[in-house]
Amino acid sequence: MKKYQILIILLVLGFNNYAQKIDKIEPPNWWIGMKHDQVELLIHGENVSSYTPSINNNSIDLKQVKRTDNKNYLFLTLDVSKAEVGNFKIDFLKKGKRNNFSIDYELKERKKDSELREGFNSSDVVYLITPDRFSNADTSNDIVKGLRETKINRKEDYARHGGDIKGITNHLDYIDEMGFTAIWSTPVLTNDMKRSSYHGYAITDLYQPDPRFGTMDEYIELATKSKERGIKLIMDMVENHIGVEHWWMKDLPTNDWVNYQKEFLEGNIVTTNHRRTTNQDSYASKKDRALMSEGWFVSAMPDLNQRNPLLANYLIQNSIWWVETLDLGGIRQDTYPYPDKEFMANWAGAIMEEYPNFSIVGEEWSLNPLLVGYWQDGKNNNDGYKSNLTSSMDFPMQNAIVEALNEEESWDKGFVKMYEGLANDFSYVHPNKIMIFPDNHDMSRIYTQLGEDVVKTKMALGYLLAMPRIAQVYYGTEVLISDAEKPGDHGLIRTDFPGGWEKDKVNAFTGQGLSKDQKDMQSYLKKVLNYRKHSEAIHTGKTLHFAPDKGVYVLFRILNEEVVCVILNKNDKPINLDLNRFEEVGLKGKQVKNIISEETLIWKNSFKIDKKGVTIITTKK
Amino acid sequence: MKKYQILIILLVLGFNNYAQKIDKIEPPNWWIGMKHDQVELLIHGENVSSYTPSINNNSIDLKQVKRTDNKNYLFLTLDVSKAEVGNFKIDFLKKGKRNNFSIDYELKERKKDSELREGFNSSDVVYLITPDRFSNADTSNDIVKGLRETKINRKEDYARHGGDIKGITNHLDYIDEMGFTAIWSTPVLTNDMKRSSYHGYAITDLYQPDPRFGTMDEYIELATKSKERGIKLIMDMVENHIGVEHWWMKDLPTNDWVNYQKEFLEGNIVTTNHRRTTNQDSYASKKDRALMSEGWFVSAMPDLNQRNPLLANYLIQNSIWWVETLDLGGIRQDTYPYPDKEFMANWAGAIMEEYPNFSIVGEEWSLNPLLVGYWQDGKNNNDGYKSNLTSSMDFPMQNAIVEALNEEESWDKGFVKMYEGLANDFSYVHPNKIMIFPDNHDMSRIYTQLGEDVVKTKMALGYLLAMPRIAQVYYGTEVLISDAEKPGDHGLIRTDFPGGWEKDKVNAFTGQGLSKDQKDMQSYLKKVLNYRKHSEAIHTGKTLHFAPDKGVYVLFRILNEEVVCVILNKNDKPINLDLNRFEEVGLKGKQVKNIISEETLIWKNSFKIDKKGVTIITTKK
Repeated sequence: MKKYQILIILLVLGFNNYAQKIDKIEPPNWWIGMKHDQVELLIHGENVSSYTPSINNNSIDLKQVKRTDNKNYLFLTLDVSKAEVGNFKIDFLKKGKRNNFSIDYELKERKKDSELREGFNSSDVVYLITPDRFSNADTSNDIVKGLRETKINRKEDYARHGGDIKGITNHLDYIDEMGFTAIWSTPVLTNDMKRSSYHGYAITDLYQPDPRFGTMDEYIELATKSKERGIKLIMDMVENHIGVEHWWMKDLPTNDWVNYQKEFLEGNIVTTNHRRTTNQDSYASKKDRALMSEGWFVSAMPDLNQRNPLLANYLIQNSIWWVETLDLGGIRQDTYPYPDKEFMANWAGAIMEEYPNFSIVGEEWSLNPLLVGYWQDGKNNNDGYKSNLTSSMDFPMQNAIVEALNEEESWDKGFVKMYEGLANDFSYVHPNKIMIFPDNHDMSRIYTQLGEDVVKTKMALGYLLAMPRIAQVYYGTEVLISDAEKPGDHGLIRTDFPGGWEKDKVNAFTGQGLSKDQKDMQSYLKKVLNYRKHSEAIHTGKTLHFAPDKGVYVLFRILNEEVVCVILNKNDKPINLDLNRFEEVGLKGKQVKNIISEETLIWKNSFKIDKKGVTIITTKK
Repeated sequence: MKKYQILIILLVLGFNNYAQKIDKIEPPNWWIGMKHDQVELLIHGENVSSYTPSINNNSIDLKQVKRTDNKNYLFLTLDVSKAEVGNFKIDFLKKGKRNNFSIDYELKERKKDSELREGFNSSDVVYLITPDRFSNADTSNDIVKGLRETKINRKEDYARHGGDIKGITNHLDYIDEMGFTAIWSTPVLTNDMKRSSYHGYAITDLYQPDPRFGTMDEYIELATKSKERGIKLIMDMVENHIGVEHWWMKDLPTNDWVNYQKEFLEGNIVTTNHRRTTNQDSYASKKDRALMSEGWFVSAMPDLNQRNPLLANYLIQNSIWWVETLDLGGIRQDTYPYPDKEFMANWAGAIMEEYPNFSIVGEEWSLNPLLVGYWQDGKNNNDGYKSNLTSSMDFPMQNAIVEALNEEESWDKGFVKMYEGLANDFSYVHPNKIMIFPDNHDMSRIYTQLGEDVVKTKMALGYLLAMPRIAQVYYGTEVLISDAEKPGDHGLIRTDFPGGWEKDKVNAFTGQGLSKDQKDMQSYLKKVLNYRKHSEAIHTGKTLHFAPDKGVYVLFRILNEEVVCVILNKNDKPINLDLNRFEEVGLKGKQVKNIISEETLIWKNSFKIDKKGVTIITTKK
């Protein structure tokens, strides 16, 4: 046997050893041409820290090798700024060549104009989907062996129902035709939890889709097919916590990887105080502030310590990895006020530096517009905080709309809540980058919140889709999904979409079996969404509204020749709306069209409205 | 008769004519050394515009003579920047010397350091008084002949009760000893209205106190005697409107002196829509915005058109005149969002330019902290508006305190309302220049709002007097005045102060006839106020509070060695408060004192609280 043959055999053996020695390299690949060109690799394997890594490649600089409290981890920082596309080897050396081994690492080429990708904006209406509950296209992945939650049961609100990624991909036609321009699905990454894994927020592998939702290829297929239609895919990410079954939790990388780690290892869980205002409150105690940020969201979700720079970098890279891999059109960030806020600013900053036209929306469930404003990038906060977050969520207006529609009209009740709520836009730096929604996956369905009143539900949607906002609608709103049976029950809120399962008697995709009200709402929403899709006035026009008067509230959106007018009327009796009050809009004598009935009329002195409801009028032909 | 003798006679005749020809010169005097040294005189007299005014004095420049739509008015602009103290003549000339006449006008010397006067600030607690209801020192002015409202009746809530300026002056001892450091009396200028003249907000002469409240000398005496004690006198001013019986309304200076003047003259009153958010709302319609600002507050109160520059200047001068005349320690401005907001910024700007250390607090009754913040000078508003107003009013926190104390404790109810309300301070530029109050002359008494619960009332006061704020307390709060009989009834809110009338059986000044609860509250408030008076920690210290926990909410104020701790406890049973939670305050092992019981103790691991209530502790000996 010649010398080189022996070498090859040794290398092969070494390589074979790899499988035994390394079980995780994350991120699994990187790209060339990134602003983030110092990639940090997490390498996990038994006793891997006893090896000395080395890269024999002139264009790649192994800048740092970091060992931690746990000998099963190595963190390598690679400068790939001068690297080329392709694979290269990382050698792991140890005294006695027999133990040496190498791994291949891939640097991919980026998609064209990847850095210029556009995020979602006020031209978008986002369809929010809970994938387990939308459509079960592949029944073969309903139960996957080896995962902790084994059953599937559509009758149980908190069990898995079998919906999957393929189910979304299969219905892109429907979503597109309805007029939605973006999809935000709640997380589909692996949630190998014992129970309630369907919701997706207890992630146990940050680099893999849950096999019950589908394969990586299927996830990429959804992304690609969405993009082909111009539908932006928004990924739901969670920096605050992981699922307690995450593989880290069995072999923690450092002594400070998760907050209250010592307590956890001793069997105690310290949960957050949920006092979210400590993020802003300059009078908050250190104690409360720390507990808010460091306490666990719930006992099944370890709270990540993003002040650990290795973890911080890991999380940032993970987000960028998914943007590149899925060619994303946006990120929705869960529980925004819970992680370390300096980290969150760095995280969003790193993503926005990589993709300057991108969008990230953060969830702060607060009815206080001061907080909505605080988180949005560009706000001149007294404490100097710059979030780098393009978009926050308009819980205050969501609440105002529901209260307004449910209340009897009076001086300070009813429509005035919407009118004064929208007036608060004066305090925002970019109101039209804030996201409005009738409801979401964590709150009662809008139809339920409005007392199962179809007319009110139409009013809410007609209004919020004309607001100067990014809009989001939860799947099934169009067919009046209700949780009235147990209002606010999370499992019930996330009811199966009718027609998403093969034997469903009612099918909202085809219309089969829908009630008159459901058909009516679906048709209404389709018309509004498809109008909105091409309405520059709604996307970027001037906003003008008139103080509620005699049970009528009128909102205009105006851009050049396009004027959209939303008339909300609470009167049960026919009324004659005096149009002279709206003189400054300059519509007199012009032909306008009702976007629902498609009737045209001339804007004169008055306008007859027969009954309670919403009327949407446009100057567009 | 020699020629000069004839001249003298003619001049004297001319001067005699003055009495017939001129009935108003306003302001009645001015001062030298003012920044506002271009004084505009309103001159009213029959056909006075037919005269040509002239000033034969080298140091005074008659810069402008302005005639208006009404020939009974002249507006003269005098440059007095080079003038000296003393009287000078203004000649009024007309063809045919017989008609000529002259008037004397006085330029006074300012009080020493007038421009450096300090306004109220967070070291102050303001005693708000409705003078008609505080103390009737002079019964001879109860009914004044020639005024429209002739009766006095203490049994009628909306009639005059006879209280007067002298009544306040007489009780400065009491006010001072209680620990108040400033007095804001609701307006005492002439309200020659047919009814409800007692409240003072329908001013019919902007340069005269109402004779039923007292003479100008008495008003000056109140100001002087207050100042001697270090008590700041705050004048309540109203730029938005006047009383419909104001002499202007019989002979309006211009065609646009009041808003909707034409309609008024035709017998129609156009009232405001009260949609105050139109001031901020960038989406508000011109129509709503105009009606908000230009509509009348009520039909008895003509809405001044401050966009008329003559009137704008008149109002600014009027305010400065009172500051100089009464040596004021501050201004409270009524109905702040109602006048033209550009004018209000100019008005406050002119005053603050004249007195850079002064204070002005504006009333915007809104529960929205965005509006509280918007009006305060220094706020970087998106619309660029700069109010020049030092202080706005904290209606949001007033409301939060009442809700917090009335609600049962839960996750999002009770103390958390105060905790999160105070957290909103992050959004203000100068939280400690905002004015907090338990109630005021327009809302139910705090004791009534809190269900006539003495303990809760003490909690509210203990807390708000420790907040980083200017504080204001309405007269009679110290003896638990209630309006529970007809909650919110304005006349009843403004109940007579016991002891303010000669034959009163109960006398809160002396303590005679007070109930145990009343004595207890008076003594409590006296202790808190007198502590606060010298507490630098409360005036300017750091604020630190801990999230409410198990029915206890704790607020600290800290400056150097002085720590003030306010413990609010809602538990009915005795509790042991764990003091380790407050470790960061650094009190461990220190001796502290209860400012009410005056007991001392050492701050250790826990603190026993026997019952529901407020405990105020200090490190001061």
